[in-house]
Amino acid sequence: MTEVADRQGAATHAAAAGTAEPLPAVDVAALGELLLGKWAEVRRQARDLAARDELHKTEGLTHTEHRARTFGQLKLLVDSGAVHRAFPASFGGSDDHGGNIAGFEELVTADPSLQIKAGVQWGLFGSAVMHLGTAEHHEKWLPGIMNLDIPGCFAMTETGHGSDVASIATTATYDPDAQEFVIHTPFRAAWKDYIGNAAIDGLGAVVFAQLVTRGVNHGVHAFYVDLRDPVSKAFLPGIGGEDDGLKGGLNGIDNGRLHFDHVRVPRANLLNRYGNVDAAGNYTSPIASPGRRFFTMLGTLVQGRVSLDGAAVAASKIALKTAITYATERRQFNASSPVEEEVLLDYQRHQRRLFTRLATTYAAGFAHDQLLEKLDDVFSGVHDSDEDRQDLETLAAALKPLSTWHALDTLQECREACGGAGFLIENRFASLRADLDVYVTFEGDNTVLLQLVAKRLLADYAKEFRSATFGVLARYVVNQAAGTAVHRTGLRQVAQFVADNGSVQKAAIALRDEESQRALLTDRVQTMVAEAATALRGANRLPQREASALFNQHQDELIDAARAHAELLQWEAFTEALGRVADPGTRTVLTWLRDLFGLSLIENNLSWYLMNGRLSMQRARTVGGYINRLLVKLRPHALDLVDAFGYGPAHLRAAIATGAEKVRQDEARDYYRVQRASGTAPVPEKSLPPRG
Amino acid sequence: MTEVADRQGAATHAAAAGTAEPLPAVDVAALGELLLGKWAEVRRQARDLAARDELHKTEGLTHTEHRARTFGQLKLLVDSGAVHRAFPASFGGSDDHGGNIAGFEELVTADPSLQIKAGVQWGLFGSAVMHLGTAEHHEKWLPGIMNLDIPGCFAMTETGHGSDVASIATTATYDPDAQEFVIHTPFRAAWKDYIGNAAIDGLGAVVFAQLVTRGVNHGVHAFYVDLRDPVSKAFLPGIGGEDDGLKGGLNGIDNGRLHFDHVRVPRANLLNRYGNVDAAGNYTSPIASPGRRFFTMLGTLVQGRVSLDGAAVAASKIALKTAITYATERRQFNASSPVEEEVLLDYQRHQRRLFTRLATTYAAGFAHDQLLEKLDDVFSGVHDSDEDRQDLETLAAALKPLSTWHALDTLQECREACGGAGFLIENRFASLRADLDVYVTFEGDNTVLLQLVAKRLLADYAKEFRSATFGVLARYVVNQAAGTAVHRTGLRQVAQFVADNGSVQKAAIALRDEESQRALLTDRVQTMVAEAATALRGANRLPQREASALFNQHQDELIDAARAHAELLQWEAFTEALGRVADPGTRTVLTWLRDLFGLSLIENNLSWYLMNGRLSMQRARTVGGYINRLLVKLRPHALDLVDAFGYGPAHLRAAIATGAEKVRQDEARDYYRVQRASGTAPVPEKSLPPRG
Repeated sequence: MTEVADRQGAATHAAAAGTAEPLPAVDVAALGELLLGKWAEVRRQARDLAARDELHKTEGLTHTEHRARTFGQLKLLVDSGAVHRAFPASFGGSDDHGGNIAGFEELVTADPSLQIKAGVQWGLFGSAVMHLGTAEHHEKWLPGIMNLDIPGCFAMTETGHGSDVASIATTATYDPDAQEFVIHTPFRAAWKDYIGNAAIDGLGAVVFAQLVTRGVNHGVHAFYVDLRDPVSKAFLPGIGGEDDGLKGGLNGIDNGRLHFDHVRVPRANLLNRYGNVDAAGNYTSPIASPGRRFFTMLGTLVQGRVSLDGAAVAASKIALKTAITYATERRQFNASSPVEEEVLLDYQRHQRRLFTRLATTYAAGFAHDQLLEKLDDVFSGVHDSDEDRQDLETLAAALKPLSTWHALDTLQECREACGGAGFLIENRFASLRADLDVYVTFEGDNTVLLQLVAKRLLADYAKEFRSATFGVLARYVVNQAAGTAVHRTGLRQVAQFVADNGSVQKAAIALRDEESQRALLTDRVQTMVAEAATALRGANRLPQREASALFNQHQDELIDAARAHAELLQWEAFTEALGRVADPGTRTVLTWLRDLFGLSLIENNLSWYLMNGRLSMQRARTVGGYINRLLVKLRPHALDLVDAFGYGPAHLRAAIATGAEKVRQDEARDYYRVQRASGTAPVPEKSLPPRG
Repeated sequence: MTEVADRQGAATHAAAAGTAEPLPAVDVAALGELLLGKWAEVRRQARDLAARDELHKTEGLTHTEHRARTFGQLKLLVDSGAVHRAFPASFGGSDDHGGNIAGFEELVTADPSLQIKAGVQWGLFGSAVMHLGTAEHHEKWLPGIMNLDIPGCFAMTETGHGSDVASIATTATYDPDAQEFVIHTPFRAAWKDYIGNAAIDGLGAVVFAQLVTRGVNHGVHAFYVDLRDPVSKAFLPGIGGEDDGLKGGLNGIDNGRLHFDHVRVPRANLLNRYGNVDAAGNYTSPIASPGRRFFTMLGTLVQGRVSLDGAAVAASKIALKTAITYATERRQFNASSPVEEEVLLDYQRHQRRLFTRLATTYAAGFAHDQLLEKLDDVFSGVHDSDEDRQDLETLAAALKPLSTWHALDTLQECREACGGAGFLIENRFASLRADLDVYVTFEGDNTVLLQLVAKRLLADYAKEFRSATFGVLARYVVNQAAGTAVHRTGLRQVAQFVADNGSVQKAAIALRDEESQRALLTDRVQTMVAEAATALRGANRLPQREASALFNQHQDELIDAARAHAELLQWEAFTEALGRVADPGTRTVLTWLRDLFGLSLIENNLSWYLMNGRLSMQRARTVGGYINRLLVKLRPHALDLVDAFGYGPAHLRAAIATGAEKVRQDEARDYYRVQRASGTAPVPEKSLPPRG
């Protein structure tokens, strides 16, 4: 009822604002299906699960109570068969990697602590045993990991090294006499830190350490280590630790520190899929290059990044559904009428604040769908070349930073857009924001990830143009970005966009045109990469210190280029999705939303387009106005666009998303209406003739 | 020791980076005095107080425990004589309005809940009795308010009306027979909401309600109402309420809801300084215009905005001191050397992230000093004309949004810049950020405040140019902004900058020149206001609905113009402060910091300067590079610039601000150095000849 009333009101408003065209309609159900994506059924099951009270975050618990509740919830997940999809069918899983991540992401709506604690147990700890271990390890540990008999840790990060995993300092030195590895923490900075399950629950751990045998350091490898006595829960001899204590969020997880004093584990505890040590201490690996081996072993981490990308999109949807619903009911100030106050969503600034973020959320969601399909292709073995894996890594490194920062920004903007009500925990913005805060720095710090993307862009550039003239560049970044290229056949498929469609200058003529937006966004990435590459030319022939200084002088530009690349990927994903929308009304509205996304990107980087002569002063001045007109067009469809997310009251759990505000506003307006009609309203002093 | 070592390293680094000039030195002690400002002694006392353990936030308490602790801390403040400075000397205060705010602001470093709960009791509740009441009220209630015998509420906001106070729905209807006012809540939306002290502690309240007598509504007035029985703490008859429950932060304060069912208070309980009702029910006021009367009564609220502005700056300082200290100790990746890892603060991006925010913090701090002096002038009666009060309101409405948003942005960026350590509550970023979150929407929603500023800019514009040609405009906004004008003689003193100094185009020639920065920043405000005014010309002759629609179409631009105005005020305040720095080295470094602030503003709005022909493409392309060179110049002085804030370990209370990271890094480097020297280091596999 609420929604219908608002839609009518909004349509009237749109008509009043001079949008003459007939109002298209959004097919909410069909759009909802599109948004559920390839693993729609898994997502539906996971949402049903996430709707259950016993999985919801209880606010106001002490962290001790919250930890206990979350651990109990993990058992419910096991009982519900919700977390085994990625494991082998032979162990009771279903070898479904994409579905596993899709289901896992949806848990964020119940409690991000639950999501991340499940991620530690099955996505990191279990996944490391599965992907880095071999048959014997699987037999020995996977059943207990899957059924939670062995809660465990993924002990990689150290106090002294987070982003630079290759430099961790824990050692695993092989002792051929005992046929054991000696796990050792040489100094305080080498304590494992921020490790989920380490403070309380972890009985076992996959510990990452420098593998040393016969005097040679073979780099970082993973070792299975028992941490605690299963009965007494006391640390085993040689092992110690500390509780990380309270955190800014995710306090349902017992993060902690671990250290090892010459702890001996059997030789067989080396998870030896990518590197083995025989009884005599001879090291062998199927991957000759230590560098490539390291990145292959770390490849399993990409799952975490992909799932954070999806969870961030889900949290953004929850926030926008609540804030936009409230903004259609909440009234403040009576600018346009003596008796009627405006609903917040009719204010231009409010539309700007919420609709631009709504557009980005759609773009991030469609980009995530492509990323998840790419992950499924790689992990299922359907497309699993080295190049596929590298493309997946790069894509995840590009998208996870943007979506997680976007989630924090959206949660905060929605909280502010709801004023004091937004600050109450009962409306969930502040709680979700606190929990998602660390998503921007864990599983790969966002800034570091964008630098990886930049390095990949530069490397590809160098590969392509080692002996070529600059003219060849015209095709380059386009190939990195074209939508279909991303999720099926890697980043490099030739799209030939610029060549086929003429100059960027021509593109600027019609900003709302899809090809024009593509040309502008693509050209920016292309030019930024080329400029950085030019500035860095010859760096590899400089002494290390000078090369490093040169890179550092361009670090900011490189990160900006990576971000521009990632934004283009999001735009391409949104545009690709438009092609799958059959209903004309839905397609019209979604195209406006895609245009809002594209033009907002152009507006955010308008100075670049101007400085580089891609847009004239006159053309640039039209961007803001065009965005404002899109806001007016989208206004009547705002509720449809958030309803299509498909989240119900059990996922939203926000007092202001229940229609309560509309009930209050209606009651107040009725009160004044009756007062006016009955003539009992007091006369305002200002309407009296002035005194003396 | 840490600092000295870093400074030497940084100096070397700066030299290596090619900055040839001899390194200036910052006189940290003198700079610290400058930053303490006019109320240095009060700030020092307040910081000593805030350093006491018993006033510190205890993390991890339930909100019930936290509330009890905070209430107990208020009593300590009373015992310390820390919170009575603004009250009359005749009641034991010291009539010191500026000093009162200065001391109050510093409490934020102990616990923002303590700051805000003290603000509710003495800054809002007590201040309302003092400023809106008259002698009888002072005698009756001020002693109990001051000594905390009467904890109380400032009951203005309602569930249905926050920003639009004039439309609150609670009524106070005069009954001449009983000589009482009847306080009544007509419907649910009129419940008082988010009221500090309402859930638990409040015995009394200043309740804002529409004063109705003899059938006329005289608008919002304040009434003293007893809420609870002082012994049983139960609500008095006719009064009810609810607990607002958990919030995103500030959980040491018991916010709640209140409602009144025909609650009778004596006629004398009207706080009658600006409006009185005699026994027969006749209303009189010293201020004839209901509008002006309303804004005069609300004028006391400006103190809250001013103090939030100062507290936001203090919190930003705490965050930057911790993050910059850590960034000089923390090492990650060894890009420039095979054995030595880089400290974070030598990375360009890290400098960008932290130094731009450091520059803004200095600017916001100096602007706050001017605002606080303006407040003191007005409240002490030294300069207390209507125009002074309006200027104070506008200045507070301009600065509070920028500084509070800046604090959230800075706390978050610092937290991210410290990675996982930043997320631990022991390092305080997340805790402070959660508590300060609501600063951007309470005591005046930031977006609404900026609209007030925009309206003032438009009104002044209209006043000045009602019958003038556009040429006169050249002087206009400059007069609004010139530094000295702000804090002594109102906003309008003629500065004649543009007229004296030639064209804006000429200014763009030397971006690092002070006059050039001023010209560019001033011209932008001036032009934006003029454009908005032109677009809105004639709006006052349109029907209300159309006028409102026209305004709404320009709402976004108006808010941007107000923001630009506020940024210019900050820049002018920073520049004015440079004139008070005697030491040449300090002045050189602070000038770089001011330039970084000014150029960052220009960079953030570069598209505007390009679109409007104020900067050429070529000139605009130099801005980023110039900023990067300033970062390198500032690098060796970063620790000095945060040390000058004057906060010690008892204010920082962050594990990573103690030098612990340097101890860990040194231990690790010593370990590897000894290993290399003794030849016991394992050989890296990658340095071996390739196998097979």
